[in-house]
Amino acid sequence: MPEPGTISRLRLSGLCFLLQTFTILLFAAFVRFSPESSPGHCSQPPNCSRRVQESGLQLPRFRDVHLQTLLGFGFLVAFLSRSGPGSVATSILVLAFAIQWALLLQGFLHHFQNGKIHMGAQSMVHADFGAAAALISTGAVLGRVNPAQMLVLTLLGVTLFTLNEYILLSLLGVSDSGGSVTVHTFGAYFGLLVSRMLRQPHGDQWEEQQDTGHPPDVFAVVGTICLWIFWPSFTTATSAHGSAEPWALLNTYFSMAASTMATFVLSPVLYDKSTLHMVQIQDATVAGAAVMGMAGEMLVTPFGALIAGFLAGLIPPLGFRFLTPFLHSRLNIQDTCGVHNVHGLPGVLGALLGTLLAGLATADAYGGRLELVFPQLAGGGRSRTEQALLQLSALLLSLLLAGLGGCLTGAVLRMGALGMASSERCLQDMEVDEEGGEHRKEPGTSTLV
Amino acid sequence: MPEPGTISRLRLSGLCFLLQTFTILLFAAFVRFSPESSPGHCSQPPNCSRRVQESGLQLPRFRDVHLQTLLGFGFLVAFLSRSGPGSVATSILVLAFAIQWALLLQGFLHHFQNGKIHMGAQSMVHADFGAAAALISTGAVLGRVNPAQMLVLTLLGVTLFTLNEYILLSLLGVSDSGGSVTVHTFGAYFGLLVSRMLRQPHGDQWEEQQDTGHPPDVFAVVGTICLWIFWPSFTTATSAHGSAEPWALLNTYFSMAASTMATFVLSPVLYDKSTLHMVQIQDATVAGAAVMGMAGEMLVTPFGALIAGFLAGLIPPLGFRFLTPFLHSRLNIQDTCGVHNVHGLPGVLGALLGTLLAGLATADAYGGRLELVFPQLAGGGRSRTEQALLQLSALLLSLLLAGLGGCLTGAVLRMGALGMASSERCLQDMEVDEEGGEHRKEPGTSTLV
Amino acid sequence: MPEPGTISRLRLSGLCFLLQTFTILLFAAFVRFSPESSPGHCSQPPNCSRRVQESGLQLPRFRDVHLQTLLGFGFLVAFLSRSGPGSVATSILVLAFAIQWALLLQGFLHHFQNGKIHMGAQSMVHADFGAAAALISTGAVLGRVNPAQMLVLTLLGVTLFTLNEYILLSLLGVSDSGGSVTVHTFGAYFGLLVSRMLRQPHGDQWEEQQDTGHPPDVFAVVGTICLWIFWPSFTTATSAHGSAEPWALLNTYFSMAASTMATFVLSPVLYDKSTLHMVQIQDATVAGAAVMGMAGEMLVTPFGALIAGFLAGLIPPLGFRFLTPFLHSRLNIQDTCGVHNVHGLPGVLGALLGTLLAGLATADAYGGRLELVFPQLAGGGRSRTEQALLQLSALLLSLLLAGLGGCLTGAVLRMGALGMASSERCLQDMEVDEEGGEHRKEPGTSTLV
Repeated sequence: MPEPGTISRLRLSGLCFLLQTFTILLFAAFVRFSPESSPGHCSQPPNCSRRVQESGLQLPRFRDVHLQTLLGFGFLVAFLSRSGPGSVATSILVLAFAIQWALLLQGFLHHFQNGKIHMGAQSMVHADFGAAAALISTGAVLGRVNPAQMLVLTLLGVTLFTLNEYILLSLLGVSDSGGSVTVHTFGAYFGLLVSRMLRQPHGDQWEEQQDTGHPPDVFAVVGTICLWIFWPSFTTATSAHGSAEPWALLNTYFSMAASTMATFVLSPVLYDKSTLHMVQIQDATVAGAAVMGMAGEMLVTPFGALIAGFLAGLIPPLGFRFLTPFLHSRLNIQDTCGVHNVHGLPGVLGALLGTLLAGLATADAYGGRLELVFPQLAGGGRSRTEQALLQLSALLLSLLLAGLGGCLTGAVLRMGALGMASSERCLQDMEVDEEGGEHRKEPGTSTLV
Repeated sequence: MPEPGTISRLRLSGLCFLLQTFTILLFAAFVRFSPESSPGHCSQPPNCSRRVQESGLQLPRFRDVHLQTLLGFGFLVAFLSRSGPGSVATSILVLAFAIQWALLLQGFLHHFQNGKIHMGAQSMVHADFGAAAALISTGAVLGRVNPAQMLVLTLLGVTLFTLNEYILLSLLGVSDSGGSVTVHTFGAYFGLLVSRMLRQPHGDQWEEQQDTGHPPDVFAVVGTICLWIFWPSFTTATSAHGSAEPWALLNTYFSMAASTMATFVLSPVLYDKSTLHMVQIQDATVAGAAVMGMAGEMLVTPFGALIAGFLAGLIPPLGFRFLTPFLHSRLNIQDTCGVHNVHGLPGVLGALLGTLLAGLATADAYGGRLELVFPQLAGGGRSRTEQALLQLSALLLSLLLAGLGGCLTGAVLRMGALGMASSERCLQDMEVDEEGGEHRKEPGTSTLV
Repeated sequence: MPEPGTISRLRLSGLCFLLQTFTILLFAAFVRFSPESSPGHCSQPPNCSRRVQESGLQLPRFRDVHLQTLLGFGFLVAFLSRSGPGSVATSILVLAFAIQWALLLQGFLHHFQNGKIHMGAQSMVHADFGAAAALISTGAVLGRVNPAQMLVLTLLGVTLFTLNEYILLSLLGVSDSGGSVTVHTFGAYFGLLVSRMLRQPHGDQWEEQQDTGHPPDVFAVVGTICLWIFWPSFTTATSAHGSAEPWALLNTYFSMAASTMATFVLSPVLYDKSTLHMVQIQDATVAGAAVMGMAGEMLVTPFGALIAGFLAGLIPPLGFRFLTPFLHSRLNIQDTCGVHNVHGLPGVLGALLGTLLAGLATADAYGGRLELVFPQLAGGGRSRTEQALLQLSALLLSLLLAGLGGCLTGAVLRMGALGMASSERCLQDMEVDEEGGEHRKEPGTSTLV
């Protein structure tokens, strides 16, 4: 009889093979390149001038693909500082699968015509939003589930994310171009609920984990830099019209700067130690960006971004100091990378801010931008109050879906949908994983069992 | 009575809060988004074609914002290799505040209309130049002042930088698009004079510091990469017309390549050890870029950039070997990150080269580019010699302003403008800081006292 | 009499000086900026609208220069994870010289008019392809030759690369925009043959080397991120028309995602250890990108990229497990960074795939894209079968040239073209180098002898 380690290694191998084969078959059956992304319809050069001109204007957006697809890696590096490079291999696995899976599901919902999905560069950007949400979710359980479970979590998480996004953006007409609700809030609470379902009886090991987070602070430096590089363009990637971009972009920068200042205001007061860890600044940067996800393109004055960013920057220090221990001790929710403080609450704050701004939106203040940000409001089909209520209901709906979906996913992972019948054996497997987790200080290795 | 550590932590917290609140109030009162960065004036889509086309041409510039704003972080990482990750948190604080402050001051000088500052994406790029100068200045004193002092240094440094830049670029019509004089020379000498004012009686500790610079050489690798990625676009970010860009861009690449070769020529001769530290290559890269700041868009033949870069690449090895010890032992100037060798002298060399090239500029060699690079020369309002003299006087003026401003700022920091009355207590506080400095090897922590 | 270490340090210094001076002289004599990259011909602003518009469409390509030139650094970081930061200084030296040299040679072959080379931003991108091939070649011998030998290897390697590229792309009309054959296959086999010629009698030291590769796995993380950021745009940088880009871009992303999955399928089966090293994922990423070099713009359905990427991702784990030990023990070929598994074989696979796709290319499937990808096929001057045979012969020709050139270069390096007469002394010098190699664990230092 083979050892348990061998079994779980082969299980991971088989699951990867199965999922990739399945994805390839679906791609073969359904996915085609969109004709718009090629000059296929224009064979005579002289007539192509209009098209070339259009594609010239499109090119910066194609360039975005380079940057946005990498956003996931920004996340990755951001997580490294908390969980060590041991988990990075797993995170890349999540990313590689999530992008393919999100492309397929979003394609079926948005770009399905004549039995084929027509995909272009923009599809890749949208798929990356799904991958980002999946990575946020895994942040809550990183180091406590094995890669095979991580794949199942990704499969279900991306599916629910796509469903939620479709309901919010397409059906309800909610404006959330940077994903305060769809990416940050949904991803964080989905992950937290999964973590709640996978709670372990011996919680003292967790405190220890927090301490081992310091050595790879090199990653926090690199992560912070990646966030400053890639996040503002991420937040503005799906805003429909290029010319509306700069405001969201600049607002995000302002918000990140102010949230960094906020951490320097609060940390010296909260902590006795006279040192400030890089990872705290990184948390502030993420929070400052998350709060601008929805409101970024709605804010018409820069100081609003400064205030929102300052408030968002206060959340992570307070959260790690007071909320995370409370969640852990009372609600039995372990949050390995602190996604609740860094993505969840700032996302909720961003959604509330977006609701407020939607309620205040007037044609006077927005001018021609109104139809870009709130097309249905500008078209007269909807009042300001209705739009604001929809923005708020988007938050509640996402929380509901994330909660239910997280419980479901957690139950699936516990039940042993990964080929294990008894939950006892699942626990045993987890302990093997924990042993692997102890080797985490060895850089660059990822437990496969 | 609270401990001194607590007092200085609370002082930092209070100062951050004060500055951020003050900035938010100023933003609220004065800063608005520029209407050009939005399609606000164009509500009917059919009429927007011209505007969209324009903004299409503008888009790459907006993209620049992503990259340039990060330049500051390139600096950051570049400094890490000398001062350790312990100082990075402080540097990010400097950056977060400097960008906001530079935006405000530059806005008042350049974009103040009808009682409001109208800012767009380009304002962000300009503000980043100010932040870069501030970061260079802090490089001279990194690890020897506390974060609160760093903030005051930033406040005064950015103010003087903006003033100097305004005089040079707007009043005198000097051409310095990449900041050889305004950013590198000004930043370096300002920092050196501040360092001179903050000199400490026991200088032996410094030699030791130099040695501890080796472990984080990982940062030198990442820093060098960041420099190659971001600096050429930084150097060319503010050149007025997109079509003039490529020359400055390519010249910067050539200069960086040649300065790297120069380090390999000189280092084996100067040092007995058979090893070459990554940080030396990084220094060469910075020097090669600094020398192209002014001359980049003036050089009409690529080999000029190779020669200038080669000469600039000789400066850091010679400087660290002969000049830095001399400055330290004779002039009592400690230069923690060696900004004099890496930014100061190459910047001066770049300014001299720019002077030479301005004196040689003819319409024959430049063609239509003349009006882009030297608009007043092309317009006939100024002769070649006058332009050259102005370029030279810009260097002298910057050195003067940096010197006076640095002395003033150093005096302010010494005097205890940070809430301390007696200079004895300030010294005591510094010693606390030095103790913190000894913990610097612990990665990712920043002393807050 | 000076020590041998001093001699070889001065030799390196002299060689660098010589090569840089020689390059500067050639640049001074021949290289000028291309007038297209400046608005030189357009002195009246009103008439410039057309030109500005054109350059507006060109701008994203200029932006590419920023990114592509850095690709070399992506390689660099990728190699770090195997050979340690000790070699990075040498690699940057290679890069700095290779870019200048490739610019000159490619200029003579492609852009030589009226006695001058007219270079623009695009020339820089092409030169970077040469630098990339040189860096791949050095990957096979990294840590076993001294920097002076590395420079000679670069000199000869870039020369042969340029010759090979000229024959393939310009004379034969082969389509290989991403360099599956010209960059990956040529670079890898050239390096392997050089390595074969420089074989050392005591091969047991090599096994040990493999083990020391683990600590700097931090670099594998950064390297993988750099690859995801820069490679897709590298692969598509030289495709003639912007509008054909997205397919190659998206295909490369798909291929990289699938090859990552493949590594997770195969590694658990091949290795008993329950850990997956980051460097394996990096290898998969490179392989997935290399296989798309030629076929990227030919694949009209995304699932083809997934399948090709999946197959390419299987090569590195199999290669490192079975092929590398075989090459080492039987053929006496040491492959320090495993370029054969990561660049060589995936490049060959990509060439075979490109041959197949060229043979299947029909105007129906490609539409207007046909003339972009296969201009001579679309023009009627060539049949599908002829194009396919040419693609195949390109592979064989490259292998032949790489083999002959590698043997020649290795012989030159052995003979002591670096100022040493007796081969015995060359060996002695190498042993000095090996001693330096033992210090490799000290980060950030590079042996100069």
